Amino acid sequence: MEFTIQQIAAMLGGEVKGESNGKINMLAKIQDAKKGQIAFLSNPKYENFIYTTQASAVIVSKSFVPRKDISSTLILVDDPYISFTVLLEEYHKLISFQKSGIEEPSYIGSNSVVGKGIYRGAFSYIGNNVKIGDNVKIYPHAYIGDNVEIGSNTILHPGVKLYSDTKLGSSCVIHSGTVIGSDGFGFAPQTDGTYKTIPQLGNVVIEDNVTVGGNTVIDCATLFGDSTVIRKGVKLDNLIQIAHNVEIGKNTVIAAQTGISGSAKVGENSILGGQVGIAGHLVIANNTGIGAQSGISKSIKEEGQKMFGSPAFDVSDYLKSYVVFRKLPDLNQRLRDLEKKVYGSNYSENKTFSSEAAE
Amino acid sequence: MEFTIQQIAAMLGGEVKGESNGKINMLAKIQDAKKGQIAFLSNPKYENFIYTTQASAVIVSKSFVPRKDISSTLILVDDPYISFTVLLEEYHKLISFQKSGIEEPSYIGSNSVVGKGIYRGAFSYIGNNVKIGDNVKIYPHAYIGDNVEIGSNTILHPGVKLYSDTKLGSSCVIHSGTVIGSDGFGFAPQTDGTYKTIPQLGNVVIEDNVTVGGNTVIDCATLFGDSTVIRKGVKLDNLIQIAHNVEIGKNTVIAAQTGISGSAKVGENSILGGQVGIAGHLVIANNTGIGAQSGISKSIKEEGQKMFGSPAFDVSDYLKSYVVFRKLPDLNQRLRDLEKKVYGSNYSENKTFSSEAAE
Amino acid sequence: MEFTIQQIAAMLGGEVKGESNGKINMLAKIQDAKKGQIAFLSNPKYENFIYTTQASAVIVSKSFVPRKDISSTLILVDDPYISFTVLLEEYHKLISFQKSGIEEPSYIGSNSVVGKGIYRGAFSYIGNNVKIGDNVKIYPHAYIGDNVEIGSNTILHPGVKLYSDTKLGSSCVIHSGTVIGSDGFGFAPQTDGTYKTIPQLGNVVIEDNVTVGGNTVIDCATLFGDSTVIRKGVKLDNLIQIAHNVEIGKNTVIAAQTGISGSAKVGENSILGGQVGIAGHLVIANNTGIGAQSGISKSIKEEGQKMFGSPAFDVSDYLKSYVVFRKLPDLNQRLRDLEKKVYGSNYSENKTFSSEAAE
Repeated sequence: MEFTIQQIAAMLGGEVKGESNGKINMLAKIQDAKKGQIAFLSNPKYENFIYTTQASAVIVSKSFVPRKDISSTLILVDDPYISFTVLLEEYHKLISFQKSGIEEPSYIGSNSVVGKGIYRGAFSYIGNNVKIGDNVKIYPHAYIGDNVEIGSNTILHPGVKLYSDTKLGSSCVIHSGTVIGSDGFGFAPQTDGTYKTIPQLGNVVIEDNVTVGGNTVIDCATLFGDSTVIRKGVKLDNLIQIAHNVEIGKNTVIAAQTGISGSAKVGENSILGGQVGIAGHLVIANNTGIGAQSGISKSIKEEGQKMFGSPAFDVSDYLKSYVVFRKLPDLNQRLRDLEKKVYGSNYSENKTFSSEAAE
Repeated sequence: MEFTIQQIAAMLGGEVKGESNGKINMLAKIQDAKKGQIAFLSNPKYENFIYTTQASAVIVSKSFVPRKDISSTLILVDDPYISFTVLLEEYHKLISFQKSGIEEPSYIGSNSVVGKGIYRGAFSYIGNNVKIGDNVKIYPHAYIGDNVEIGSNTILHPGVKLYSDTKLGSSCVIHSGTVIGSDGFGFAPQTDGTYKTIPQLGNVVIEDNVTVGGNTVIDCATLFGDSTVIRKGVKLDNLIQIAHNVEIGKNTVIAAQTGISGSAKVGENSILGGQVGIAGHLVIANNTGIGAQSGISKSIKEEGQKMFGSPAFDVSDYLKSYVVFRKLPDLNQRLRDLEKKVYGSNYSENKTFSSEAAE
Repeated sequence: MEFTIQQIAAMLGGEVKGESNGKINMLAKIQDAKKGQIAFLSNPKYENFIYTTQASAVIVSKSFVPRKDISSTLILVDDPYISFTVLLEEYHKLISFQKSGIEEPSYIGSNSVVGKGIYRGAFSYIGNNVKIGDNVKIYPHAYIGDNVEIGSNTILHPGVKLYSDTKLGSSCVIHSGTVIGSDGFGFAPQTDGTYKTIPQLGNVVIEDNVTVGGNTVIDCATLFGDSTVIRKGVKLDNLIQIAHNVEIGKNTVIAAQTGISGSAKVGENSILGGQVGIAGHLVIANNTGIGAQSGISKSIKEEGQKMFGSPAFDVSDYLKSYVVFRKLPDLNQRLRDLEKKVYGSNYSENKTFSSEAAE
């Protein structure tokens, strides 16, 4: 991961002003950058740093006119911020996909095939009859059960667990500790008060370009041949619970610690805040927004709604109710005053109640 | 895992009509089934599929009268749905317990004994002085600390962690990533604002027939000789927090992401929804129902109550209050109108407040 | 881990009465203690046990006057309870740090250095360019990514995952399954409804004396050179979500299942209950108390406040409102009665609404 300044300029379609053979091995902020690093100058309030920075190269605007001498090589571009962002992404991709080869000991069962450019970290486990595409990165302690299929360019971070029969698409990223395909929570009550386990025989299907955070759990579907489905482009944060037979529509984003109960269907392009709960078997329309900590107890049929509260309803209605909630002791007192005025001597205090703290 | 149709019919006490030596290696829905698979027909609206299915065998009712030719072998039973469920369970058991033997590398410490029929997956770890019963399945990356005891027929899915001294019963299932026996959260405040760790010296005891979902955490008890106890038949879902010294009564079911604080005792045969919180040291009576996202701040002494809200009270009372909550802006306006009417010119608007969104 | 009674007495500054060469290998309650164990007597209601206990030694007060013969050796101290607590702590420290050496197979990359007294459990993984201090305990299945630094006397329990570039201080304890340094949840919406991943290039810095419970997740900072920071003495419980760029002030205690959104800053010496949510970019003052399940939607500027509710406000105000909330159906009825009385025949029922259960 070392480039010449000339190579980076070519990547950005920029023009080099100064020494073009210098080596770059790291990105940095202009105020912190050292030799061998590249920075950028976009906001004029950082301009002073460009005259003192140790950076080997700085990305600047074509229109930038220096007021003093600059020791760093300059790369002139249309928009330095966007160009730096491009570099960050390239750098991130390089970092993410830099591992390759097989570290030992690692385990692979019988009849399993892996693509080119794979990384199999030490202590990673691949079961039997597994199919893995090209350029997949399997970090240490990842577990891949029997009959799993994984598309190309997918990353399994350390300790990810994929139960048997899971299907995982291409260009997915699954973070550490996440469990995919564990048994759905299904138990049939018996007459003696005990519960009998309902066998969980389905699987989990995750389409392409899905990101899942750390320590999230996605349960398999109950019935044989059924799947819990995460559609393409979905982004799930950390510590989320996705129960059996749930379907999450494409490009929906769900923040940390939210839980989706069994058989619920969440629409496309929706945004769910953190710690939201959705009850079982509900259907949530596309383009729904749900505020943090809300509890959804009924299906949402109309698209584009914003919900809040537990149980949730329209967010602006909720906030209007909540502002009165905060003044309830006053409101109660106003009502009592009015009762005294209206009922006069016929009025009994017993009809009211005091605002003592809830027992 | 391959059976003849005759063997399956014998298992179900059914009668074979057609070729009885065909091999079955998989269950399927009648509309999807292929050669080598068995399906069932229960609901008449699926009848048409039986005339076209590729299934090698179909389970049907004794009273079923075909309207056309059927190429599949039939197994005649009293109730096809129940018979198929029996097969599903048998299949699930076979799948769950099919692994056996020792994959290498795996680790076992000194003075530890394991029973017959055990599976020790690659990268599984068994510490010192551990006792493990017959037919226990220890999947890859499972960790079993020193002095742990595990009853027979228990399954530890990949990456389960059992801290030292944990006692786990028979026929338990623990899903991936679950942590049992980690330190309770106990810290003594010091005068300088720092906290001193209170040593956590107890353990966790889990009785027979307990199921625990993925990425749940159960802390050990604080005092030496004490235990956090999960009674027999308890079913815990994913991502649940069970703090130190908690006791969960037998056959209680707890949904995902619920948290039980330290030293709380939850009764038997209770059902807790998802994302519920229970405060420390409370006692919850048997047969209690608690709605999702509720917060329990007081002990529940009377059995059979249904609670909701945060802080929770009786669910039907809560919902009655909540329907008024939703109309609070109207109620406030009605009160204001009444104040104007009653007080007339003596009335000051300043006594009321507007329903603007909460700051 | 075996001491003579004399050694223990010396440790406690106590006086031995009886056989001082007896061996002690375990602590126990006076009612349960056996030969080779030590117990204590503090509460007079347990006095009877001292005359029958099998304990090899019992810690008692200097002022204790036996009423009968005692077979155990006595250790006389000022305060038996405090002395026993000291022993518990020593015992816990011994247990926690007793493991040492390298179990095989374990993995260590190139250019990594580890201190003296280290424990590297089987299947533990250390990447490249890692620096680890003295007496660090790395349990089985722990993962330490490239360029990580860990101070001395820190314990990583089984299955802890530290992503690359994490910095972890001295005397920290990280419990099983916890993930540190996973990608922050950042995605830029595109015009076609998809999301582009914002590269997460920062790291996590955890200072000294921090304890983190099991299955917690702490994300890295977004920008290169930035850090998510957990200050010294912070205590985090299980299943907590700490998003990118968060900072938690020193000696703050956070209970299980709480979530802190991106870029929020939580002050020092604060106490957050379980299942709390804090929205992104907020600043929470020092010495704040937040009740369980509360949702914080605005910054808290004044120190020392106690908050509750979702959205949260002052706890005593919240409880005053909540007591009226519980009586809202009555309040609505009182208002209706008053309307009938005041408006008489002009009054329309349509202006009110009934207390039916929320749809």
